[in-house]
Formats: sequence, structure tokens, C-alpha cells
Amino acid sequence: MKSFNYYTPTEVVFGKGTENEVAGLLEKYGAKKVLIHYGGGSVIRSGLMKKVTDKLDEAGIDYLSLGGAVPNPRLGLVYEGIELCKKEKVDFLLTVGGGSAIDSAKAIGYGVANEGDVWDFYDHKRQATACLPLGVILTLAATGSEMSDSSVITKEEGLIKRGYSSNYCRPKFAIMNPELTMTLPDYQTACGCTDIMMHTMERYFAKEGSMELTDALAEGLLRTVMNNAKILVKDPKNYDARAEVMWAGSLAHNGLTGCGSDGGDWASHKLEHELGGLFDVAHGAGLAAVWGSWARYVYKEALPRFKKFAINVMGVEDKGSDEDIALKGIEAMEDFYRQINMPTNLRELGVEASDEQLVEMAHKCAVGVGGVMGSAKKLKEEDMLAIFRACK
Amino acid sequence: MKSFNYYTPTEVVFGKGTENEVAGLLEKYGAKKVLIHYGGGSVIRSGLMKKVTDKLDEAGIDYLSLGGAVPNPRLGLVYEGIELCKKEKVDFLLTVGGGSAIDSAKAIGYGVANEGDVWDFYDHKRQATACLPLGVILTLAATGSEMSDSSVITKEEGLIKRGYSSNYCRPKFAIMNPELTMTLPDYQTACGCTDIMMHTMERYFAKEGSMELTDALAEGLLRTVMNNAKILVKDPKNYDARAEVMWAGSLAHNGLTGCGSDGGDWASHKLEHELGGLFDVAHGAGLAAVWGSWARYVYKEALPRFKKFAINVMGVEDKGSDEDIALKGIEAMEDFYRQINMPTNLRELGVEASDEQLVEMAHKCAVGVGGVMGSAKKLKEEDMLAIFRACK
Repeated sequence: MKSFNYYTPTEVVFGKGTENEVAGLLEKYGAKKVLIHYGGGSVIRSGLMKKVTDKLDEAGIDYLSLGGAVPNPRLGLVYEGIELCKKEKVDFLLTVGGGSAIDSAKAIGYGVANEGDVWDFYDHKRQATACLPLGVILTLAATGSEMSDSSVITKEEGLIKRGYSSNYCRPKFAIMNPELTMTLPDYQTACGCTDIMMHTMERYFAKEGSMELTDALAEGLLRTVMNNAKILVKDPKNYDARAEVMWAGSLAHNGLTGCGSDGGDWASHKLEHELGGLFDVAHGAGLAAVWGSWARYVYKEALPRFKKFAINVMGVEDKGSDEDIALKGIEAMEDFYRQINMPTNLRELGVEASDEQLVEMAHKCAVGVGGVMGSAKKLKEEDMLAIFRACK
Repeated sequence: MKSFNYYTPTEVVFGKGTENEVAGLLEKYGAKKVLIHYGGGSVIRSGLMKKVTDKLDEAGIDYLSLGGAVPNPRLGLVYEGIELCKKEKVDFLLTVGGGSAIDSAKAIGYGVANEGDVWDFYDHKRQATACLPLGVILTLAATGSEMSDSSVITKEEGLIKRGYSSNYCRPKFAIMNPELTMTLPDYQTACGCTDIMMHTMERYFAKEGSMELTDALAEGLLRTVMNNAKILVKDPKNYDARAEVMWAGSLAHNGLTGCGSDGGDWASHKLEHELGGLFDVAHGAGLAAVWGSWARYVYKEALPRFKKFAINVMGVEDKGSDEDIALKGIEAMEDFYRQINMPTNLRELGVEASDEQLVEMAHKCAVGVGGVMGSAKKLKEEDMLAIFRACK
């Protein structure tokens, strides 16, 4: 077991109609001038944005808006947001949307609160020392960004996708009404469930260090998401299933499911970042597409973890060799992906990558991680390429 | 499923030697003049206090000390602490100890930050609007007070034990080094494990509302504590087992294991509060002594919960009638108490209560809760008395 720090200061307000509490929460956290940051027009078409601005108007809270955050959110919009906040003296960011809009807002927050180019943080050239305070009304359960310390931004030039983590960007509050996620396309719902599970699976497949308690929480979370993801395939308006998935999304990535481990593996995420950068695929689907190939490539090096996963999460019977059990667990996971209509390779993801592109992605990935990544097995550039080729 | 708020802002610093980080954490949270509040002399004899004051001396942080917090911490010492803090212009409380010292510090914090008699809050006559900031170096895994919003104080006059909860008192930081708990007497360790489990069991046995995810986390936590409590009976210096129990103690009572429920049952705690007030028994042992009688008195009213508990926590086979399964779960829990040398009735607890005393406790309990308590089954004064009589 490793030592750890655990810090999740976000005030979560969870349940039906909780978006109506937005003005009170903004006041509680001292917001005077708010930038409402969002993605596409769905939050406007659904009437959510009007509900929010009505509440702010009633409370006399000054605000302006910036939309346009896209999946794999772009650095260009971040720069635009930073300039706008500085010009308008914005002191609080309110995201109405999902992980892309939250991540974009976090980057804007860093840019406003620190001197110099905000990309430096994502390029790991220097550390942020502050972030503008941030609140969230969540409309998509997936990235866990509403409680997490991380954000991922894509630089248009070279399509470079990079993450940056610090406690400064953890949101002050997160309003989570599961009803707001009911109108999502089925594909996005399934992508979200995959992303949520992967945040905990990345932590789970740490080779060094673990806690019995953390494992028990992680396993319970994974079983719960799987169960409810399958319910949502058939019954997308099921409030309880939406709520289970939404709350799991926050707990899967706020640090809880990694306490005591060596920090986790994260290789699947980093492989997917390259896919997302080059092909602009949905993050969750990209993760599902690479996971099986990653797992088969590394499982022998972390056999006890893969065995435990197979038995406690996937319900594989504890019978036969450890290797058999581990492989059955990987197969069961891929079966689950198929049940929720997620891809298990690049072709099913809709990506027809040339071998040159796989070589390019492996190279960019290796450069991005400084040569080596992973915990279950340490992966070098040739390993990354082998995994990309295996999942073609 | 019910709506919920979840707010756990405490920064947890967990692992070996983490007490050495105390000065940095105090500085981070703006402490200028610190009251170090503790219980008995064990933290002095162990050398921990000297280590802490050396760190504060090195960092040039001004401090004074107040010891004497006892199990079922007393209002008299709270008043003394409030006066001392006001006189010395203390702006930060640092507890070095377990739940009693933390609860005592929380009450001092309320008393300093609010006008009037601090007992008013515990007597539920009015609400606190602030609390002096508080940090913790934890030496005993039990109450979860290091992350919780609650504290329990006993008024000497009439031996009235009352709890008060508000987010204001949640500690800013909690330093948790499992090694600091290794020298505890076995009885205290077992009491701590019982208390930890009961914080989650009280939440679990809510009749209305539940979340599949919350249940899965709660069940995993309970299984983990049981497993490690049994290890500690034989091997009290086992670091990993100490760490599992210590971290479980915080998560069992910070709100995590109650999300989506109706708030929980809490009858066992309230019955034990009366025991603790009148007989000054160890809290955990008191809980173990009343739980079985409570469970047998109420289980028919919340059969699905007791059945789920029996199967998922106690490992009872899903065979036979729901009632049989539920009863087997209760028996298995009592067996576990015996395995860790905890009592399962008042006699084993060492309490020889007269029927007049049982009547008095039931009456005080009913008054304290405003007539009715519980969720699994609503209990009136005659029910409370019946449970006390059953566990005699």
C-alpha cells in the first residue's frame, strides 16, 4: 500500500431540479461576474440555459456566455475565453455541459489566473499556481471532470491532445440532475459509461500497491456502472439508472478509487488521446476500442490484478489457471462493450488507420509521455505501436 | 433514490510519517496561533506531541496546548477551551488524538466562532453559523470525526450526551498515519472497528431510498473492515490492516455511504448515546451491545435491506425464506462481534442496569430525539425501552 493524498472539495448537489439552486451556489462561492461556458446548442434548445440565466437575472448576478466547446476541446476557444474573461473582469466560471465544456473552462481558468501561455501547463513546461473558481451544471455523465483535478485540451496545430492535473481546478460546486442526461443519444450514453469505468479501471490496473478497501469500492462501482449501462440501452429514460451512472462518474475520477495504489496505469487513456487527436473520435468509444488489445498485451505482467478483476468485477468463476481466468475476464469485458454497442477495435470504431498513422500515433504518444508509460506493464514506443496494430 | 448533498472538503494526507507535514498544512490553511487539543497523556508519552511541537517551533508557528479530552467528551472542558482561545486569540485548532479530542475541538470551534452558549447547538435550540478552522492528526480509527460534519458532547449535569452536525466543523486537513494507531489496546481497536462499521450500517438500514452504487460501496467497506478487524485481533501491528481500518473509518462517516438514502436509521447510535451518558462505556462496545437487540426488534419492517445485508455483507447463502436469511445475517454479525471480543448485550458490556435505569434511558432518549427515531422502523419510547430490556 502506498501513501496518498485525497482532496475532493467540490460541493455536490445531486437530484431532480437541482439546477434551480445555481444562483444560491454562485453567491455562496462569491461569484460577482460569471462566464457561462458551454458546448453546442443543446443546452439552449433544451431550455436549460434560459432556466439558468433566469435564475442569475433574478439574483442580480452579472454574466456573459461563451459557447462552442467541442469534444476534444480546442486550445483556440480557450485563448478566446481567457481574453474575454480578462476584458470583462470575470471572477467565476460556470460550465453548463459535459466534460469538454468543463475541461475548456478549467483551461480558461488557468489562463486567467496565471501569466504566460496556458498551453505551457498542458505541455508540462511549468506548473499553475492558481485557477479561477469554477462551478458546474452537469449534462453528461462521463469524464468525471465535475469533481476531478484534471482537464484535457487539444492543440489544433499538430492535433496534440494533452492533459494537466492540479487541485486548483477542482470545481467549487457541481450540480447534478440525472434528468438532464436523459436526452443524450444512446451512443453518447454508452461512451460515457465506458469512460467512467475506464477511469476506475486505469487506477485498478496498477501493478504496485493496492488497498483492499479501494479495490472493494472500485469493484462495486464497476459492477454498478455495467449493470446500469445495460439498463440504459433498453430504457434510456430510467431515472435511477441515470443517477447511478452519473454519481459513479464523479466517484470514478475524483481520486477515491485510486487511494493506496501507485497512481494507476493510464496507458489506455494515453493511447486513446492519440486516436482522439488524429481522428476526433468519441473518447469513450476510443477507450473501448483500444482496451482489449492493451489488456491482452499486458495481462501476464499483472496477473493477480487481472485475475481479481475477472472474478470480482466480471463474475468469472475461480476455476482453472490464473491465465485462463484473466483472459476470460478480458473477454467478458469486451462482451459487455458489445452489449452496449461500443467498439472493441479500430475498425468497429470507424477508424481506417494506415500503418503510417499507427506509427505516427505511437511516436506522438511516446513523446507525450516522455518515453515510457503504464503500470501493469511499462510500455515503450514499440509496445504502443504493437497495441495499436493489434487493435486495428 | 433521494436527492443528496455531498461535501467532503477535508484534505487527507495518509501514510507513514505524514505527521511530519503538520507545519506545512497549518501554514497552507492560514494558522497563526494554534491551540493543540488532545486527550490523555499517551500522545505525550509516545513522543508524538514533541514531534509535532518541534515542527511548529521550526516553522515559527505560535501555539498553546489543552489536554484532557475524555471519551464522551465533556462540556466543561469545551467551555475552558473556548475561554482560552478567546483570551489567547487562537485562530486555528489542531487536534492530536481520536474522536473525543476532535469532537471536543469542534465544540470549542463553534463556541469561539459564535456568540452565546455553545450547548445551544447540541441542544438543537439554534444553528451555528461558523466554526474556527480545525486540523487533525489522527491517533485512533473509529469515529470518522476527522472528515465528518458531526460531533458529540456530554453535558455533565444530567449526563446528557448530544450530537450536532454542520459542514462548518469539517476539518481542513486530516493527517492519518496508521502506525500511530498500532499501540492501541486491543479492546479499543475492536471498539473502533465496531464504530466504523456502525456508521455505515446506520446509513445502510434506511427503509426509504437507496442507491445501488452506495450499497455496493457500503457493502465493500463493511466486508473490508470485518476482514481487517479479525486480522488485528491476532496481529495488532499489521500496517496494512491498520491502514484499511483507518481509511474505512473516514469513508464510513463522511457521507459517502449514505448518498441517495433517507439519511439512515441511527437508532442504535441514539440508544448507545444514553448508555454512554449514564454508564460512560466505550462507544463502540456500547453499539455492539445494543445492535443485535435493535436488529431483531426492527428487521421485519425492513426485510429487503436485512436480507441484502445478510447476503452481500455477511455472506449468508441466498436460500430459504427472507426472514431466515435476515436472521442469519444478524446472527453472523453477532458472531463477528464475539470474534473481535465485543459484547452483544449489556451484561457482556459490563453494565448491570436496573429496570429503572433502562426506563430512564429510554425516556431521555425519546426526549432527545423529539419522540420518535429510526428509519428501518419508527421507534417510540416504549420501543426504545423494549430494545433496552431485550439487550439486558
